[in-house]
Amino acid sequence: MPAMPEPMNFCPNCGAPTEFRIPEGDDRRRNICTATGEIFYDNPRNVVGTIVEREGRILMCRRAIEPRRHFWTLPAGFLELGETSADGAARETLEEAGVTVREPRLFNMIDVTHIGQIHIFFIADMIGEDYAPGLESSEVTFLAEDEIDWPQLAFPTIHRTLERYFASRRTGDFGVRVESLGSQDWRAMALDREPRD
Amino acid sequence: MPAMPEPMNFCPNCGAPTEFRIPEGDDRRRNICTATGEIFYDNPRNVVGTIVEREGRILMCRRAIEPRRHFWTLPAGFLELGETSADGAARETLEEAGVTVREPRLFNMIDVTHIGQIHIFFIADMIGEDYAPGLESSEVTFLAEDEIDWPQLAFPTIHRTLERYFASRRTGDFGVRVESLGSQDWRAMALDREPRD
Repeated sequence: MPAMPEPMNFCPNCGAPTEFRIPEGDDRRRNICTATGEIFYDNPRNVVGTIVEREGRILMCRRAIEPRRHFWTLPAGFLELGETSADGAARETLEEAGVTVREPRLFNMIDVTHIGQIHIFFIADMIGEDYAPGLESSEVTFLAEDEIDWPQLAFPTIHRTLERYFASRRTGDFGVRVESLGSQDWRAMALDREPRD
Repeated sequence: MPAMPEPMNFCPNCGAPTEFRIPEGDDRRRNICTATGEIFYDNPRNVVGTIVEREGRILMCRRAIEPRRHFWTLPAGFLELGETSADGAARETLEEAGVTVREPRLFNMIDVTHIGQIHIFFIADMIGEDYAPGLESSEVTFLAEDEIDWPQLAFPTIHRTLERYFASRRTGDFGVRVESLGSQDWRAMALDREPRD
């Protein structure tokens, strides 16, 4: 995922070569079709996920796919066209953890500018008792704060979101937070490079 | 802006034809390069903007560009790669209204699924006294609630955001809201089709 627009080579519509330059009246380089002049924009993408609590423990998935295969995550994935952010978070929770949720409430929004993403997490209530790994998970379980193996988390935004969630639980303040998280945070969190077996 | 992925014709990387089909393990159609198998994803885009108040009036811009040229809007535009959502909202405010702001605080997030966008507004404080239309605005001014010509607003999310903001001002509750807004809301708001002069 790029932090800045990257050059393409061919117009996806007509197949003519594209050039990568600053259009008139703009201030950053874009891909422009040399045949039609059409400008192609690249923008940050949204990742949406949930925090689901059951008897004090949090729903977590072990990733069965790259990147960060075998590491632990909250259920989350890219928001799709045609769905709301809350519906997307619920869909990912069903797909990755086999858990149906209701009433997702916005908890945080983390700008991850160095990879061109925004990670958005919702607190959601579990419906029923079913859970099971989907295609993208190898394991699904519920973990208490002291059961989480923090360096084995998949991504810095998962680390940050869980940290904040447990802090919110202690203070009772679940007000929405907006923050940003850079590549230096990854290092500060000291996430493991290799998964534990 | 599409509500669902739309077919492209050529791979932007290698120029080979693409096909538009559901990849294995997926559940929606994507553009796939017939030469390399690369899959191209299309996702919702974020529009970020601000609500800036000065002496009880709200900073507003008259659009100098399509769509909705000559209609009124809050300063807002597409979030760019490499910037945080709050920084993007501040940038748009400077570009469109010549206003420098500080400390944008998240106010609302509106999923607009039928056009594949999320509109995110921040309340921000104006620094200094300067304001002036940028390239994309023909007029910039500050309007009180009863000075706004509601049917002349550019977009339904602007209508909704201003409505909610004035309601929040009355109740004192500025808690972040997440909502969605469909094409039927446009009709319910009865925004004018033609701009008044």
